[in-house]
Amino acid sequence: MIKAGIIGATGYAGGELVRILLGHREAEILWYGSRSYIDQKYGSVYQNMFRLVEDVCKDDNLKELAGQVDVIFTATPQGFLAGILTEEILSRVKIVDLSADYRIKDVAVYEKWYGIEHKSPQFIEEAVYGLCEINRDRITDGTRLVANPGCYTTCSILTAYPLVREGLIDPGTLIVDAKSGTSGAGRGAKVPNLYCEVNESIKAYGVAGHRHTPEIEEQLGYAAGCPVTVNFTPHLVPMNRGILVTEYASLKRKKDGSLPAWEELRAAYDRCYGQERFVRVLDRGVCPETRWVEGSNYVDVNFVIDERTGRVIMMGALDNLVKGAAGQAVQNMNLLFGLPEEEGLTMPPCFP
Amino acid sequence: MIKAGIIGATGYAGGELVRILLGHREAEILWYGSRSYIDQKYGSVYQNMFRLVEDVCKDDNLKELAGQVDVIFTATPQGFLAGILTEEILSRVKIVDLSADYRIKDVAVYEKWYGIEHKSPQFIEEAVYGLCEINRDRITDGTRLVANPGCYTTCSILTAYPLVREGLIDPGTLIVDAKSGTSGAGRGAKVPNLYCEVNESIKAYGVAGHRHTPEIEEQLGYAAGCPVTVNFTPHLVPMNRGILVTEYASLKRKKDGSLPAWEELRAAYDRCYGQERFVRVLDRGVCPETRWVEGSNYVDVNFVIDERTGRVIMMGALDNLVKGAAGQAVQNMNLLFGLPEEEGLTMPPCFP
Amino acid sequence: MIKAGIIGATGYAGGELVRILLGHREAEILWYGSRSYIDQKYGSVYQNMFRLVEDVCKDDNLKELAGQVDVIFTATPQGFLAGILTEEILSRVKIVDLSADYRIKDVAVYEKWYGIEHKSPQFIEEAVYGLCEINRDRITDGTRLVANPGCYTTCSILTAYPLVREGLIDPGTLIVDAKSGTSGAGRGAKVPNLYCEVNESIKAYGVAGHRHTPEIEEQLGYAAGCPVTVNFTPHLVPMNRGILVTEYASLKRKKDGSLPAWEELRAAYDRCYGQERFVRVLDRGVCPETRWVEGSNYVDVNFVIDERTGRVIMMGALDNLVKGAAGQAVQNMNLLFGLPEEEGLTMPPCFP
Amino acid sequence: MIKAGIIGATGYAGGELVRILLGHREAEILWYGSRSYIDQKYGSVYQNMFRLVEDVCKDDNLKELAGQVDVIFTATPQGFLAGILTEEILSRVKIVDLSADYRIKDVAVYEKWYGIEHKSPQFIEEAVYGLCEINRDRITDGTRLVANPGCYTTCSILTAYPLVREGLIDPGTLIVDAKSGTSGAGRGAKVPNLYCEVNESIKAYGVAGHRHTPEIEEQLGYAAGCPVTVNFTPHLVPMNRGILVTEYASLKRKKDGSLPAWEELRAAYDRCYGQERFVRVLDRGVCPETRWVEGSNYVDVNFVIDERTGRVIMMGALDNLVKGAAGQAVQNMNLLFGLPEEEGLTMPPCFP
Repeated sequence: MIKAGIIGATGYAGGELVRILLGHREAEILWYGSRSYIDQKYGSVYQNMFRLVEDVCKDDNLKELAGQVDVIFTATPQGFLAGILTEEILSRVKIVDLSADYRIKDVAVYEKWYGIEHKSPQFIEEAVYGLCEINRDRITDGTRLVANPGCYTTCSILTAYPLVREGLIDPGTLIVDAKSGTSGAGRGAKVPNLYCEVNESIKAYGVAGHRHTPEIEEQLGYAAGCPVTVNFTPHLVPMNRGILVTEYASLKRKKDGSLPAWEELRAAYDRCYGQERFVRVLDRGVCPETRWVEGSNYVDVNFVIDERTGRVIMMGALDNLVKGAAGQAVQNMNLLFGLPEEEGLTMPPCFP
Repeated sequence: MIKAGIIGATGYAGGELVRILLGHREAEILWYGSRSYIDQKYGSVYQNMFRLVEDVCKDDNLKELAGQVDVIFTATPQGFLAGILTEEILSRVKIVDLSADYRIKDVAVYEKWYGIEHKSPQFIEEAVYGLCEINRDRITDGTRLVANPGCYTTCSILTAYPLVREGLIDPGTLIVDAKSGTSGAGRGAKVPNLYCEVNESIKAYGVAGHRHTPEIEEQLGYAAGCPVTVNFTPHLVPMNRGILVTEYASLKRKKDGSLPAWEELRAAYDRCYGQERFVRVLDRGVCPETRWVEGSNYVDVNFVIDERTGRVIMMGALDNLVKGAAGQAVQNMNLLFGLPEEEGLTMPPCFP
Repeated sequence: MIKAGIIGATGYAGGELVRILLGHREAEILWYGSRSYIDQKYGSVYQNMFRLVEDVCKDDNLKELAGQVDVIFTATPQGFLAGILTEEILSRVKIVDLSADYRIKDVAVYEKWYGIEHKSPQFIEEAVYGLCEINRDRITDGTRLVANPGCYTTCSILTAYPLVREGLIDPGTLIVDAKSGTSGAGRGAKVPNLYCEVNESIKAYGVAGHRHTPEIEEQLGYAAGCPVTVNFTPHLVPMNRGILVTEYASLKRKKDGSLPAWEELRAAYDRCYGQERFVRVLDRGVCPETRWVEGSNYVDVNFVIDERTGRVIMMGALDNLVKGAAGQAVQNMNLLFGLPEEEGLTMPPCFP
Repeated sequence: MIKAGIIGATGYAGGELVRILLGHREAEILWYGSRSYIDQKYGSVYQNMFRLVEDVCKDDNLKELAGQVDVIFTATPQGFLAGILTEEILSRVKIVDLSADYRIKDVAVYEKWYGIEHKSPQFIEEAVYGLCEINRDRITDGTRLVANPGCYTTCSILTAYPLVREGLIDPGTLIVDAKSGTSGAGRGAKVPNLYCEVNESIKAYGVAGHRHTPEIEEQLGYAAGCPVTVNFTPHLVPMNRGILVTEYASLKRKKDGSLPAWEELRAAYDRCYGQERFVRVLDRGVCPETRWVEGSNYVDVNFVIDERTGRVIMMGALDNLVKGAAGQAVQNMNLLFGLPEEEGLTMPPCFP
């Protein structure tokens, strides 16, 4: 039985970790860390866990925690883990970090986009970017630190990855228009996240400056074999969960000027995802919808070719709290400990 | 492995049966019945089940189905099962009926409230009302026909049951004000259920005439040991899932005119539900909220005494598609086949 | 042209006052008071007013304001106005107070339910309870202080008023089950009002202790001619605007034991509201729905007799920000200044 | 007083026409046409209009109607007006058509995208495309037939128009990612528009094939002075009203390779919209949000330059039922009859 600790257990991603781990047959939670609710019963903060979790919330003493568990999930603000991580801690426990602290290899890029100094850059190189479908081979029992990808990032990358990797699109033309449910904004008490402010409205935000941009660019750059610069525009949607991305890129034409056929693109998707448990390439003509993945670890992807403009429109949908956060974190934990990758993650999407 | 068939698999309750049974370790679905979608892949109608369910939808031939499975769930319109049920069918298969056809013992009452003739009243007596927490002992491997309770009914009865049974309230004063999410209205294409008609609004409907009224009255009458007549008013709430009931009744005063103490009422709840897996009596002062039970088989109940009016306000919350329909149906199936009652139903509530 | 000042102009009720007064032909706003946003452009806080309102937000200096305007609307927290109101201010300006400070005649009742000391009880007697349909005659150019009724209160009182006043129901049996949109909770940044906490859920709150209870009881007591004690239970509904009340009471039986006829009750409603511009008694069998009054000053009311229980179920719907707050405040202003009562309030409900 | 008739008065756009025209000082509605509800009181179908509209619904006899009114609004399915319009009708009455029948000058393009034969192409040339801000000069008392623009189209065109017209972007790179509330899907009883199907989800639809594409292309082509081909992708958002468009295009670089400055783009917007009553160019850094225009005839637009990619991200928001349908139709009526363009359209946006 893997012993797990969660720092940030009363945020939305932390709460989802609890929900998922409660159904995991090989893991148990020993530490519900929450600075805001220390000594309160977890099940009285998240009343859905009333009687299911009897523990009280503890602090975020990573050092102490490292001695008690096998794996720590940090669902914490940017900079938190980087500020306290030490070699001693890492030598005693595996960490799956849901923040952005170790996702970006170039510390200057991190510091520019996040506007904070990175306090422990010495661990960046070691950290594995935990996008399981792509980096699976590097997430093993020897891995100590996993940088769990961002929600927008996971969806954006997986949606375009096959066509980028196989050179079927011009990566310089890639535009990612993303839409997210409101749980992605976190559980902080802020006016813009109040019910009446979000409900019955949609808006873009972070236009040309959202922090998930360099993460997308770095990973797609690896796939393309060259630097990739994208436009990434997130939008806030009046719903609890779900991310949908709509991505646009120009298809590379053949020598005779023709576009690649639908079958060729589909084959690229199948090569990437044909064996994947959690990526579903939908049937031709079916657009991903967030309702069909809600509560599950699935990513649904598909594409449409527009012959008129020579572009391909790629679409992807996932649950930002599951595959976009806690689910992928558990998937990473499973890889770290040699468990079946889908353990604890087999719940079907819940509709409606 | 129990073989199960579902008639009405593409309604919301039917879809939820599929979701739950996919996680059940002792049951498998062999028949996805749906008149509207015959020969279409189930996973293309309910796209959340894409790649999880490869079967195509079949018709509603109960007779044929009876020869192939151990249990049939009928999530069908009122009158459907009553119109085709035969002794031959019942001799070959167990049936859990999610419609109202066999819930009410007095056929005249059924015919009056539902406005249709009952075509097979000979099976009413035999049918067991499948409110597991109350009728558990009568749902056994000898039972052939279970009348799965209505969603409003389950919530309304369980919320008031302890106080009615122990004679702590005057049942003649009982008023049930109920609020339901929109999935309770079904998946039929009707203007009043369109997004823009339901969203941003609340209304009462079926005032003084809703069909769940006699079902509540009959069951609470058994508990009270005398006929009970209630006001039951359902309301439509702009959310997908969830039922909340707020119930009002006058407390029976003691000989000295005083009201019973909070502890006495609490003890009554504990006597009924102290050992129950799926009924959670909340801590004092905590009101049930539908978000805390969503996606799960839990019913959360609690009460407040109003000293000024001498009334008790009882509250209960459940997920209308789980404990209010499919979850309870599976709970009944587990009882019918001698399985642990919670098998397939242990998923925690999903928030947000 | 009436000069108006608003204290609390950036709350939801304050914002609605702005929206309504911008369409009022006889009033103009000279002072947008908002402690939180002093010196910021009002149209940058409420971006809907961008380019429609060029003023910046000012403080809440009531004394200074009193010298500049004819009427002040105070859309402020409980206790604010009571804490600063003076005879000097009242001698110079009329005040329509949207808080509860002067609604309740018995200062002990106010202090008990609100948990704060009343700092200027000397003005309570003078204040007129501004429920226009009932107290119209007392709101005149001689009135200096109007206590604008609460949102729940307006809806609860107007729905039951005809039957209470005419003695057709037993007021001791009155139960008010109320449901409100989330704007009623205000614009404060609190976790329970975040989008993801409210969305997809319904709950009761303030059970047996909500502050609007004594206000309802006092006013219905005047109508009944005797003290009235009620159960009032508010619920939070995932929608922006709207209040629906469902009220239950036992009908007084005639000497022969029979219930009053529908026509008798309807006649009572017509006597009260037949000439009212803003109260619509719906056709028989039509239940009020909040969507039909959204954005308008209307209250829709109706009732159903339940012969089985001898009770009448009364229902009422209004927009909590209009008739439940800002609209009624403007209606009061119109009365105070001898304008047509509907001036500025003729916008039809907006659907969907 | 202008006499107006509405065909399709019980659709959402028709209902909005009624709401707006009730507040119009120079127009009155004489004919509420609705095939589905003939002889029913309009105020019983749209209960918000109870007591405000006493008329009953009539049929869609355009010929008869033409003799009774000055202007007819046709809020009808594609092909309806084209199928019955005659010279005789047009010689007697002005028509503002909210369908697409006369929006596209090239009948072959219309027939290809709409998949129906155009029955009266002889009127296409005469019809004026009623995008008031652009075609104002051509909508006069001599105009007989106005093709009221589509909702997506209005928003998409107005958002990009200044930069297209002034040649600041490369129109061949234009991508329009649009998001709409559900009222845009109409009031037809279809499963995909049910509350539970739309709520808590977002999806793209009509990818690479939506009918508003050629309308956008035609109008932007006029502005650019050359053919324009765009990617247009609509999305369905769980809210009642509102359209947001996010548009991407490459900025034309100067001879020295530099991008145009923000001030230059802003000046282009100001030249187009500086005098416009209903187009608000927001302050730098403020993104349009649909909540800020709800219920009003405003379009909010803004843009952000992404120096990294050399693209400009343009954003626009409007209420699809007002500026996207009924409001613009009334704006056109005002122009047709020489009234102030804003008459009946001055209601501020309603928030929340």
